[in-house]
Amino acid sequence: MMKLGLIGAGRIGRLHGEIITYHVPKAEIKTVAEVYADEKTIEWASSLAIENVTKDYKEILKDDEIKGVIIASSTDTHADLIIESAKAGKDIFCEKPIDFNIDKIKEALKAVEDAGVKLQIGFNRRFDHNFRRVRELVDGNKVGDVHIVKITSRDPAPPPIEYIKVSGGLFFDMTIHDFDMARYLSGSEVEEVHAVGTVLVDEKIGEAGDIDTAVITLKFENGAIGIIDNSRQAVYGYDQRVEVFGSKGCAVANNDYPDTVRLSTDENVSTDKPLFFFLERYYDSYVQEFKSFVNALAEDKTPPVVGIDGLQPVLIGMAAYKSMKEKRTVKLSELF
Amino acid sequence: MMKLGLIGAGRIGRLHGEIITYHVPKAEIKTVAEVYADEKTIEWASSLAIENVTKDYKEILKDDEIKGVIIASSTDTHADLIIESAKAGKDIFCEKPIDFNIDKIKEALKAVEDAGVKLQIGFNRRFDHNFRRVRELVDGNKVGDVHIVKITSRDPAPPPIEYIKVSGGLFFDMTIHDFDMARYLSGSEVEEVHAVGTVLVDEKIGEAGDIDTAVITLKFENGAIGIIDNSRQAVYGYDQRVEVFGSKGCAVANNDYPDTVRLSTDENVSTDKPLFFFLERYYDSYVQEFKSFVNALAEDKTPPVVGIDGLQPVLIGMAAYKSMKEKRTVKLSELF
Amino acid sequence: MMKLGLIGAGRIGRLHGEIITYHVPKAEIKTVAEVYADEKTIEWASSLAIENVTKDYKEILKDDEIKGVIIASSTDTHADLIIESAKAGKDIFCEKPIDFNIDKIKEALKAVEDAGVKLQIGFNRRFDHNFRRVRELVDGNKVGDVHIVKITSRDPAPPPIEYIKVSGGLFFDMTIHDFDMARYLSGSEVEEVHAVGTVLVDEKIGEAGDIDTAVITLKFENGAIGIIDNSRQAVYGYDQRVEVFGSKGCAVANNDYPDTVRLSTDENVSTDKPLFFFLERYYDSYVQEFKSFVNALAEDKTPPVVGIDGLQPVLIGMAAYKSMKEKRTVKLSELF
Amino acid sequence: MMKLGLIGAGRIGRLHGEIITYHVPKAEIKTVAEVYADEKTIEWASSLAIENVTKDYKEILKDDEIKGVIIASSTDTHADLIIESAKAGKDIFCEKPIDFNIDKIKEALKAVEDAGVKLQIGFNRRFDHNFRRVRELVDGNKVGDVHIVKITSRDPAPPPIEYIKVSGGLFFDMTIHDFDMARYLSGSEVEEVHAVGTVLVDEKIGEAGDIDTAVITLKFENGAIGIIDNSRQAVYGYDQRVEVFGSKGCAVANNDYPDTVRLSTDENVSTDKPLFFFLERYYDSYVQEFKSFVNALAEDKTPPVVGIDGLQPVLIGMAAYKSMKEKRTVKLSELF
Repeated sequence: MMKLGLIGAGRIGRLHGEIITYHVPKAEIKTVAEVYADEKTIEWASSLAIENVTKDYKEILKDDEIKGVIIASSTDTHADLIIESAKAGKDIFCEKPIDFNIDKIKEALKAVEDAGVKLQIGFNRRFDHNFRRVRELVDGNKVGDVHIVKITSRDPAPPPIEYIKVSGGLFFDMTIHDFDMARYLSGSEVEEVHAVGTVLVDEKIGEAGDIDTAVITLKFENGAIGIIDNSRQAVYGYDQRVEVFGSKGCAVANNDYPDTVRLSTDENVSTDKPLFFFLERYYDSYVQEFKSFVNALAEDKTPPVVGIDGLQPVLIGMAAYKSMKEKRTVKLSELF
Repeated sequence: MMKLGLIGAGRIGRLHGEIITYHVPKAEIKTVAEVYADEKTIEWASSLAIENVTKDYKEILKDDEIKGVIIASSTDTHADLIIESAKAGKDIFCEKPIDFNIDKIKEALKAVEDAGVKLQIGFNRRFDHNFRRVRELVDGNKVGDVHIVKITSRDPAPPPIEYIKVSGGLFFDMTIHDFDMARYLSGSEVEEVHAVGTVLVDEKIGEAGDIDTAVITLKFENGAIGIIDNSRQAVYGYDQRVEVFGSKGCAVANNDYPDTVRLSTDENVSTDKPLFFFLERYYDSYVQEFKSFVNALAEDKTPPVVGIDGLQPVLIGMAAYKSMKEKRTVKLSELF
Repeated sequence: MMKLGLIGAGRIGRLHGEIITYHVPKAEIKTVAEVYADEKTIEWASSLAIENVTKDYKEILKDDEIKGVIIASSTDTHADLIIESAKAGKDIFCEKPIDFNIDKIKEALKAVEDAGVKLQIGFNRRFDHNFRRVRELVDGNKVGDVHIVKITSRDPAPPPIEYIKVSGGLFFDMTIHDFDMARYLSGSEVEEVHAVGTVLVDEKIGEAGDIDTAVITLKFENGAIGIIDNSRQAVYGYDQRVEVFGSKGCAVANNDYPDTVRLSTDENVSTDKPLFFFLERYYDSYVQEFKSFVNALAEDKTPPVVGIDGLQPVLIGMAAYKSMKEKRTVKLSELF
Repeated sequence: MMKLGLIGAGRIGRLHGEIITYHVPKAEIKTVAEVYADEKTIEWASSLAIENVTKDYKEILKDDEIKGVIIASSTDTHADLIIESAKAGKDIFCEKPIDFNIDKIKEALKAVEDAGVKLQIGFNRRFDHNFRRVRELVDGNKVGDVHIVKITSRDPAPPPIEYIKVSGGLFFDMTIHDFDMARYLSGSEVEEVHAVGTVLVDEKIGEAGDIDTAVITLKFENGAIGIIDNSRQAVYGYDQRVEVFGSKGCAVANNDYPDTVRLSTDENVSTDKPLFFFLERYYDSYVQEFKSFVNALAEDKTPPVVGIDGLQPVLIGMAAYKSMKEKRTVKLSELF
């Protein structure tokens, strides 16, 4: 049984803890480190039979029994925790994004490389059954040379304005998943970015300095073109679709629905709305992501999402902001 | 340009006239015979540039220029008109059913055989794009040996009670199309019939001696089993679906819809209802049916739906009534 | 934490054990009784942290800590185990069918009633997300008065001939689920049955005295008509669809698929096949079934599938066999 | 019966002639003017019962019996023919594009205005059943405020290189329909354009100075964002889909297919490919377009697609070329 340490027990940290406890038979969380740990944290940990709760993540790093750490604390702590964990010889799972500062990301990746530990970035959507199937079709040459990649990614409702103020903005809190997906589906790196962003959902989002509706065009190194469209509010629920068009065909992944039932009445033919939000839609992808992480550690293999996958989407996000501001196509190479 | 004569200018006769005029470039209606012909009949014929309107169908039979007749008069006249037309050497298109009396049908078919003329029965649904595609898949051995044939056939609303009183009842006015479809899709003759029928839509239909909801089970000579379900009222519109299941797969034909648009809202995901009724759904099948008839005449080939296809569905319908009454499986061979 | 005892650790018993351990947080299996218990049984139980393994189910019945028993042993032991468990004051979950003998079923149900314990029958498909949704629409009067219920139920491949010889035959090993589903979806009891069965998949099934392809027509007390079609071999995978048609509309539940991806090529547009078999398709329904059972016990409520639900499908199956043999409609009331 | 004159009897001109003859009962083509008229032109006209064939379009303009002209000659003649027709007092249907020169377009529109005649531009896709339905939903406020408009438009195969050399390029020969569709679906004018174009299908297209794959981003005056993706080669057939996302929902129009049949086998579940090309997909939209034109003339109403609709898409196309070349967002207002 592989022992893991969990740093951060907020919403996403708890989700990770539950998934490892219930769905990854080969691993268990030995210790949870949460700087704001209280009675409820202890209660939660106990409900999962997690032995230790601490406010000091160093307890995890010092514990020789713990093979890997899961970093699910606030974004500003990610890079430093990667560096310390690497130095402590721990394999690392880190939530995205690593950081918003390119130099800090590079420093963290260098620490990982120097220490020879493993690092997996939390782009869980790569493990989604639909998107993975599209990637398989691309890999299996069923789509041929990739010409166009399309990603639709819309949330059911905007997050609180307080969150938006510190999230890094739409391109970093939301589109970053789509930037990763674009690289995953195209099998290529992004060369150029063009972005249009606007405020159509809620003026308060604009007042907080952010946008809520955006379209981003990507040019890939292999010549393909990518399109991402985002909205912070799709009233019908979480809208997560992708499409890869190429020389031999086109693979389209639709949303997931709670059931397959169609009701025909004298009014219309109707079905339920798509699965509501990321917990419903991506639960299984979190399970698969951690199974992959634990497998990589157990079998001493490279994890399926590595350091460069943490760096590139942040670069693309920066290019998108620059493009939106300057109303022009921005090359990623301008940012180095 | 092939000249045809049309006997009967009621609803279905007029439809046939329009379809030949607008969609079958190789043929034209020279004369319309309608026993109740009046000013409106003349006006209608003139709008289609049909030369002659008469109350006497014999004018058509005597006209050497006319190669084929289309019999669209009331059912009780079909058999006699077939016999007279055959004797007059005309090729014949006859609306279904030929008759409700087996001996009269046989007599009509014999007249056709003796005269060496062609006879096509008006089972237009064989020319529907969906059903024809299913048949192609069966013929092309994509479904393998046929095991189960399923037909769903529901009207959007019941016909007038007055019609029901003279129609021969649900098995003869509605299911007869499905009996033909079952033979067409299975590629086999029916051996045994079991029927359940009831009144769930409108009590008045029961008072008129008919049923409005039915399920019929068929056993085919090739061993396959068939199921037909009927209702006189599907509030969402005309429901016309078929399915053929076999040793190598399953072909399912869904309804046609006016458009492909899906609307997702905070309530549900919806589409339009299916195409409303037979004119919308089967218009193109009428066009194809007459193109086939005219082609068969022009190229001196056997039409695609022949005399036996007019006889068998009536036999199956009789067996269905007998089964419903006696609450047992009825063999078609009992009826000879 | 509610303690349960599991009687029978064959394939289905193990599935139940795993589901309770991993997915029903409020309950745990304390003891497994398996008459053929060996090293592998102990190993399996240990992997689920189940305390006790015994060959004698009476240990479970005598254990005051154990509130409920799960009967997953061979069918011929079900009725007696229900009776003994009831006398021991245990609440009971019993796999279907209870028995093939009506008197034994009645005796078992009487014992349950006399003891005042709860009994849930293992018709897990009632908890399937698609079928439950159809039932909700029926309950919510979205379909109106039920006129026609259609159930398609086809296995991906036949079971071993050895199994078929002892299973009670297709109507008892396979259609019994559909008989229950028919009652569940229609909200009514079955009055009359007509069945057609044949051997089209594998002659050896016929030699073993069974059928592999069948169509059953049901007449319900509320006037509705039901249709079930079965095959022991759908080469494209598990085919599990239902449809309820009524005065206000029609609800259709399609199969589940592993993903939503559509691939368009120069050949065709294709998707994956349906989920392969019952483990893939119905896993979640087993989870929901046991959550419901544990909830009913915890809250002292009637379970969602009760004794009568164990009796009726067996009666319908008997009527189906009688109908197939005698080629006539059989009333359930004939069997009393 | 309204008399019309047809100028140009190439592929599209003949299509128009056939559609008016067979599907627009209120109108007929009296005269065809084709500068290269030969025996085949006369034969074709005679097959449609068109009275006159001439090489001189002025015969049409001088004919008092002719109410409207249909301009289907080569693009470079459109503007002048509009001007002459307007001066001759004829109502005008003109194929798109009017011209590639903004001043010539404006001159033509001014001539129309001065003469007080009607002008309809041949953007037939506005009459497509799917797109019209999406527009109805937008108009009916079912989608709410429009936020994002997406158009996928891909041809089954590239046109001949010779055509590409004179067509004005992809944005003018293909995307121009999508620029019109964007305006139609959004109900708003375009303000800014960004375009990415590349050669991925056939190098010869690049050598001819054109592109074969493109993505265009539009910013509308009402704040919405538009995305168009184009390819000259979708091997699975004509791919014509649109989507409008707004504050109240999302309307998605899928492709049309030749039938609804799904075949499930041990390999996959498959359907036919989409309808092959514009003749199959848009035939009915041509019919509706001419019915609308004839109705507008008959009832003295404004046609549904007017002069400004001929001007704006050309402006957007120019902005797209400028953007692609200069790698920046281009405002339409820069082009005045």
